Amino acid sequence: MKAATVNPSTMSQSFELLDPKRTIAELKELRALTGNDDGAQRVAFTPTWKRARDFLREKMSGLPVETHTDAAGNLWFTLRGESGKALLIGGHIDSVPNGGWLDGCLNVMAGVEILRRIHAEFDGRPPVTVRLVDWADEEGARFGKSLFGSSAFSGNLDLNEARGLKDRDGIALPDAIAAHGIEFEKVKEAGVEAENAAAYLELHIEQGPVLLDLDLPLGVVLGTCGVERHAITFRGQAAHSGSTPMNRRRDAFLAAAKMAPEIYEITDRHGGVCTIGSCTTKPGIVTSVVEECRITLDQRHLDASALAGMLAEAKSASERYATEGNVSVAWERIWQIEPVPFHAGLIEFCDQAILETCGVTHRLPSGPLHDAAEVSRAGIPTVMMFVQSLHGISHNKIEDTREDHIEQCVVAFDRLARKTMEWIAAKD
Amino acid sequence: MKAATVNPSTMSQSFELLDPKRTIAELKELRALTGNDDGAQRVAFTPTWKRARDFLREKMSGLPVETHTDAAGNLWFTLRGESGKALLIGGHIDSVPNGGWLDGCLNVMAGVEILRRIHAEFDGRPPVTVRLVDWADEEGARFGKSLFGSSAFSGNLDLNEARGLKDRDGIALPDAIAAHGIEFEKVKEAGVEAENAAAYLELHIEQGPVLLDLDLPLGVVLGTCGVERHAITFRGQAAHSGSTPMNRRRDAFLAAAKMAPEIYEITDRHGGVCTIGSCTTKPGIVTSVVEECRITLDQRHLDASALAGMLAEAKSASERYATEGNVSVAWERIWQIEPVPFHAGLIEFCDQAILETCGVTHRLPSGPLHDAAEVSRAGIPTVMMFVQSLHGISHNKIEDTREDHIEQCVVAFDRLARKTMEWIAAKD
Repeated sequence: MKAATVNPSTMSQSFELLDPKRTIAELKELRALTGNDDGAQRVAFTPTWKRARDFLREKMSGLPVETHTDAAGNLWFTLRGESGKALLIGGHIDSVPNGGWLDGCLNVMAGVEILRRIHAEFDGRPPVTVRLVDWADEEGARFGKSLFGSSAFSGNLDLNEARGLKDRDGIALPDAIAAHGIEFEKVKEAGVEAENAAAYLELHIEQGPVLLDLDLPLGVVLGTCGVERHAITFRGQAAHSGSTPMNRRRDAFLAAAKMAPEIYEITDRHGGVCTIGSCTTKPGIVTSVVEECRITLDQRHLDASALAGMLAEAKSASERYATEGNVSVAWERIWQIEPVPFHAGLIEFCDQAILETCGVTHRLPSGPLHDAAEVSRAGIPTVMMFVQSLHGISHNKIEDTREDHIEQCVVAFDRLARKTMEWIAAKD
Repeated sequence: MKAATVNPSTMSQSFELLDPKRTIAELKELRALTGNDDGAQRVAFTPTWKRARDFLREKMSGLPVETHTDAAGNLWFTLRGESGKALLIGGHIDSVPNGGWLDGCLNVMAGVEILRRIHAEFDGRPPVTVRLVDWADEEGARFGKSLFGSSAFSGNLDLNEARGLKDRDGIALPDAIAAHGIEFEKVKEAGVEAENAAAYLELHIEQGPVLLDLDLPLGVVLGTCGVERHAITFRGQAAHSGSTPMNRRRDAFLAAAKMAPEIYEITDRHGGVCTIGSCTTKPGIVTSVVEECRITLDQRHLDASALAGMLAEAKSASERYATEGNVSVAWERIWQIEPVPFHAGLIEFCDQAILETCGVTHRLPSGPLHDAAEVSRAGIPTVMMFVQSLHGISHNKIEDTREDHIEQCVVAFDRLARKTMEWIAAKD
């Protein structure tokens, strides 16, 4: 498949009001303001992040929007419409340290442009209310806990866990956010923002190479994958490397190592992804058979039953390899989350918007989590659109997207916003 | 095979002069003096080690031996004979921390008993000179460098390397040994002790389970294995565990893990032993494909060409797995030593001595190094005898040997000493 270019014959008059090139210019402006030679530095709850938000406020100052920060530090811009029912467009201006120039802020800045278009087209009074939200601390880079603002909004934030988080300087999360005017114990009051929310749209750079490999500019995101994350510990017996015959060994590394090809076979059968991200060995010296080997396994799938199958097969394989090698195996769950499928109707709209813009579309799940997953879990119809990442890489200064693809994504995302507004208005 | 019991009909009159039960009693005395609930604590260059050597001196004080410490701190007891040609019997009274009660001191105390027998039998004037040596710091427990005293004796000690060694308290090896009267820069003068040395015998507890599995009390050691010790580093690319399709991964752990079953196949083909003792991963986090995986590989074989073959096959496999996984691989040699085959004639004597004592014998290589390897490398005809280890384990307080096996090993080792003395005398 080749990516089609924008077909002028499918363009509506609204394109005269939309300026995707301005979005690119503003993204570059933001990069210059908040990045350095190592990449983006808009880590949440830092002065640079505050500077990025000030930039966003300034860009929105030309529109007649109501602006406020909610109880969790999420920044809202509301353009009142005929109906109180609201279309939410969301993103996150925060980045990881040394991050890419597009991850998170692309959707915020595209949202700015779309609000401008809506304001211009409807002369300040659109049929439904439109709100742009900049979620607080999507990345969790400073405290190791992602989706802070959106999970406070959805009610899924674990306050007891978050209360104890500290950054590398020992500053507690509640103290850090207090410095930004956020009262930790009240963050879930952000849930009031869900009132009248009728749909949520999020545009994001793909954090992998799927669209790149298919040579496609844009894709519809079907949902965020469920995740099963475990530590698996094999225990054998330490023994002298020189004096212990091979057939007498209880080699914990041998059993653990057999899991590496196994997870590729599991994904061959089920789809999804599996990753062994770390391996540690004890005593971990050159002259001893490994007594204890701990690996971590991260498994993801959009389908809950497929994910359960992947987990069961990995457990079964680990027990088989443990038995073969006369070692024991123990599993410990680190974290899990169920799959979050997006809204079928909005997926359809997104598909159409991409097709009308590019002439070709593609549906794919998201392995990484996004704020959209929390919004969807809050019961709000949700969909995401992905734009191709040039190297299939994110969280890195080399993250990039072709400028013609950025223009296309702004156009297609605007089309999606239009279709969604019509859908909300029709339901109202 | 079942272990035979001692056949009284094969016992010579010398047994009336040899008291293996006394050796066991003295070993227990030493254990009480220098061990605790965690095991033996005779770490070289410590007060407990000095106490152990004082104990040894006291036990030897009843014999008309010349006693001195050489330039490397090795402790020598010399019973002058008709000929200056000398039979050396060696061992090491030092232990690892929390070590076993037999590793190292069994051979020293058996040597004491054999010198008593020789003195009694020949009325203080044996046909050849007999010397007992207690090597200094065989274990290398404090400074991480084994065979200190014997490698100074053989001339193989790397002075530049040893000069820089420090213990965990930051005390340098030269300073630590100076406190025991040893001048570091002169340690290789210990080489003068090799003068007139005609043969070297060493008895040791097996540090593995070979004799245990065969249900045999004693074995002839054919030599010490050559060792090839490498670090192998696979390098791929870090990538998000959720967004990177399996077929796009450059997974360094996958390639490294495939080496684990591979080394078992290599030893199936060649014999010998191979061990992957440690595995480290970078970035080593649950949400990233492994970019860099470093494993250590320890390979041992008594046959130099087989060892070279094992190394070549491991390298070839690592390159195959790297290519398969689109990662790179680099090898770095940590250490190597060639195989040290023992003296054919002495192997024969040892075999006979065991057969005469137990009715059954067995030949095996030693995976671990011993002082005997350094003596052999100095050009002195050498052989070792192993006695069964009850759990196949050493360097641990549970290390043990059946008392009837200890008695048998003292008897057989004495027979070996007798045969070797006759051989030396005949050559003289």
